[in-house]
Amino acid sequence: MQLVDTIIEARWVLPIVPKGVILENQSVIVKGGNIAAILPTAEARTQYEADDVVSLPESLVMPGFVNLHSHAAMNLVRGLGADLPLMDWLTTKIWPAEGKLMSPSFVHDGAYMAGLEMAASGITTTSDHYFFPMDAARGLRDAGLRCATSAFVIGFPSAWAKDDAEYLKRAEAVLEACKGDEFVRATVAPHAPYTVNDEALKACAALSAKYDAPIHMHVHETAVEVSDSLRDHGVRPLERLERLGLVNERLIAVHAVHLNDEDIDRLARAGASTCHCPCSNLKLASGFSPVAKLLSRGVNVGIGTDGAASNDKLDMLGETRLAAMLAKAVAGDTTVATVFDMLEAATLGGARALHWDDRIGSLEPGKAADLIAVNLATIQSIPVQDPAAQLLYAAGRENITHTWVNGRLIAIRQEIVAYHDLNAVDRANSLAGKWQNRL
Amino acid sequence: MQLVDTIIEARWVLPIVPKGVILENQSVIVKGGNIAAILPTAEARTQYEADDVVSLPESLVMPGFVNLHSHAAMNLVRGLGADLPLMDWLTTKIWPAEGKLMSPSFVHDGAYMAGLEMAASGITTTSDHYFFPMDAARGLRDAGLRCATSAFVIGFPSAWAKDDAEYLKRAEAVLEACKGDEFVRATVAPHAPYTVNDEALKACAALSAKYDAPIHMHVHETAVEVSDSLRDHGVRPLERLERLGLVNERLIAVHAVHLNDEDIDRLARAGASTCHCPCSNLKLASGFSPVAKLLSRGVNVGIGTDGAASNDKLDMLGETRLAAMLAKAVAGDTTVATVFDMLEAATLGGARALHWDDRIGSLEPGKAADLIAVNLATIQSIPVQDPAAQLLYAAGRENITHTWVNGRLIAIRQEIVAYHDLNAVDRANSLAGKWQNRL
Ligand SMILES: [Zn+2]
Ligand SMILES: [Zn+2]
Repeated sequence: MQLVDTIIEARWVLPIVPKGVILENQSVIVKGGNIAAILPTAEARTQYEADDVVSLPESLVMPGFVNLHSHAAMNLVRGLGADLPLMDWLTTKIWPAEGKLMSPSFVHDGAYMAGLEMAASGITTTSDHYFFPMDAARGLRDAGLRCATSAFVIGFPSAWAKDDAEYLKRAEAVLEACKGDEFVRATVAPHAPYTVNDEALKACAALSAKYDAPIHMHVHETAVEVSDSLRDHGVRPLERLERLGLVNERLIAVHAVHLNDEDIDRLARAGASTCHCPCSNLKLASGFSPVAKLLSRGVNVGIGTDGAASNDKLDMLGETRLAAMLAKAVAGDTTVATVFDMLEAATLGGARALHWDDRIGSLEPGKAADLIAVNLATIQSIPVQDPAAQLLYAAGRENITHTWVNGRLIAIRQEIVAYHDLNAVDRANSLAGKWQNRL
Repeated sequence: MQLVDTIIEARWVLPIVPKGVILENQSVIVKGGNIAAILPTAEARTQYEADDVVSLPESLVMPGFVNLHSHAAMNLVRGLGADLPLMDWLTTKIWPAEGKLMSPSFVHDGAYMAGLEMAASGITTTSDHYFFPMDAARGLRDAGLRCATSAFVIGFPSAWAKDDAEYLKRAEAVLEACKGDEFVRATVAPHAPYTVNDEALKACAALSAKYDAPIHMHVHETAVEVSDSLRDHGVRPLERLERLGLVNERLIAVHAVHLNDEDIDRLARAGASTCHCPCSNLKLASGFSPVAKLLSRGVNVGIGTDGAASNDKLDMLGETRLAAMLAKAVAGDTTVATVFDMLEAATLGGARALHWDDRIGSLEPGKAADLIAVNLATIQSIPVQDPAAQLLYAAGRENITHTWVNGRLIAIRQEIVAYHDLNAVDRANSLAGKWQNRL
């Protein structure tokens, strides 16, 4: 018998790779933070032993969700200014609140709260995009998550940096700081085509190449973004980005809503990824990403929650369900965006976009033990005719009972266990109150 | 001191009427199944006493959801045939399963399971649409819900009736059986324009007038339905229905997806209602109901989950959230379909459509005590900057802790208390297994 750290005995295992497979009555063997093996439980019991055996006779075990786009600190400004016109919302609510509160501790505390919500929602990795990125990473790590933080660049002064030169200097420092870190990687994160000038974008392209880091950027989110670019630059944003060296296999085009066939060609040719954020796109009336077309052209699609100010849920399972349904309605075809397509997008799709699929995004021996268990024996999800369909369409994040990152349990039955020595939710409540009072 | 049955001390009360109001630190006083008063908790404590005092210092109390369109028994066929083309799905999965299982006990058991899910999801009334409608009503009542069941008519033989004459005879019997019932009302429910002929539709119109009963019907769900009607009848379905006497203040046009301006005029002029089922419309790739246009024309809009086979969640809070976001994206305007518009649609809108707003749909003295409590102090919903926005956008059905129908608690913290003497979820699990085995 081989001694391992944890044995998870599952009714169903959805490994994502190979695609379309559901294993029954199998165990996931965890050792040293990694998946050591996945094999029938009957065999596992003859080969492995562990102090920590988790028996889940009614649950499905799958990779944790990879949230490909978040602004974690914005959990602290969730719920401000519902139903306002977009520019009023930004100028009278969100930007003043951020301006007032922006600081390392605001970003840490907000990211920590978001991390607790994400942990309870089965998200094991998030790709964040915000000011004070190392504080965001610290908050997310405190909640137990793996993360890609952002070497963030925007053409406006902030408490984080005063001008392009300082943003770029800090961006490189973030890339340096994350080198070789198992839990925190960095993306180069110019905010958007309309908030970063050509020179700074070229510098971002150079940083991405130098550090082999993904480029994490809002791209083609609104119709106005595209028409303004045509007016100001004579070309659509993606064509401008291509000229500046940003459209390549490292690009993560977040939102990617307003795409014509030429834009899709451009992404497909480059081997770029998109990040679909359907809740944010609907709530901000941005439009509908052509997800089925992107998938059929072989573009890698990941899924993101965006920030809690515009969503307002950090719920990847809900986001993925909406993504699947919406893609069908937009395409007018029930057969596109299948259950397995979309569960792959929400896990391995995000991992691929982050070039982190050597470690995360699927359950395969040798990869990190970043995984979740989902109880399907609830009144909301029975009968289980098809475990994968039931998981995506009938279950909700409330069905997620366990979240492990690198083999460590960070949430159990909607309670947070990242801190065993204090009540994390009480702490989050008091942090929320503190920052709310300062608004 | 006045002795009452239950005193609910809430942090926030969202009464729906008057619109846009949130009361703080108020109590809802329940006596004899009705709301006796709503007043500040400090005053309530000097005027009322009860054995049953429910203190909810972090929760919002609001009317229970009115699910305006369900096929409750279809919980037993949830999860069959995901991602198939629509006609394949119906002809190879759903209709054969229904054909095989259809019986009074199938309908009762499925409706009972759906009722348990609805109770746990804060739905206090559902308007059902199915074969064996009195068995559906019995299942829903067993789970503790109020319901409108259907005097169901479809132009195909079934285990429930063999031809139009028998359907119509049974429909009238349902209308008679529900007369004067506090908990079970009846709607006249021709299935759809394309499944019921002119004669039977005229007879339905006559029944609706005779019993002053709403007409509950799938209308303008798909583009094909409209084009087939133009081909077969020379007019769009709503024009045909108008000629046959069905477009009036009693009509509930379920789905109402493919509407041109003339269709919307027709509904507005008649004082008809629509029932919006956004999950079903997306998942079946039916299209996008013009909800903002309907609201701006003064058409009464309710919200429905549709059946679990096409949704697959009986989650009115999630459905309403999606309805709000989707309406904004379809209109290209963040200011339409406000939080209060949509929460009203999900409660009072449904009650109005059912002509049941004398009893349900808002928290007002004299109305039935059909209400729910939603805990907003969770890691998923803090900070609470705006309780109504947080409820709609950040909370999920997992935040719903209490559901009362007519003053009786039917679900608490996602557990079902309809039956105190046995484990309702275990019973539902065994029923699910029984019917799954017969497929
Ligand atoms: Zn964003
Ligand atoms: Zn229906």
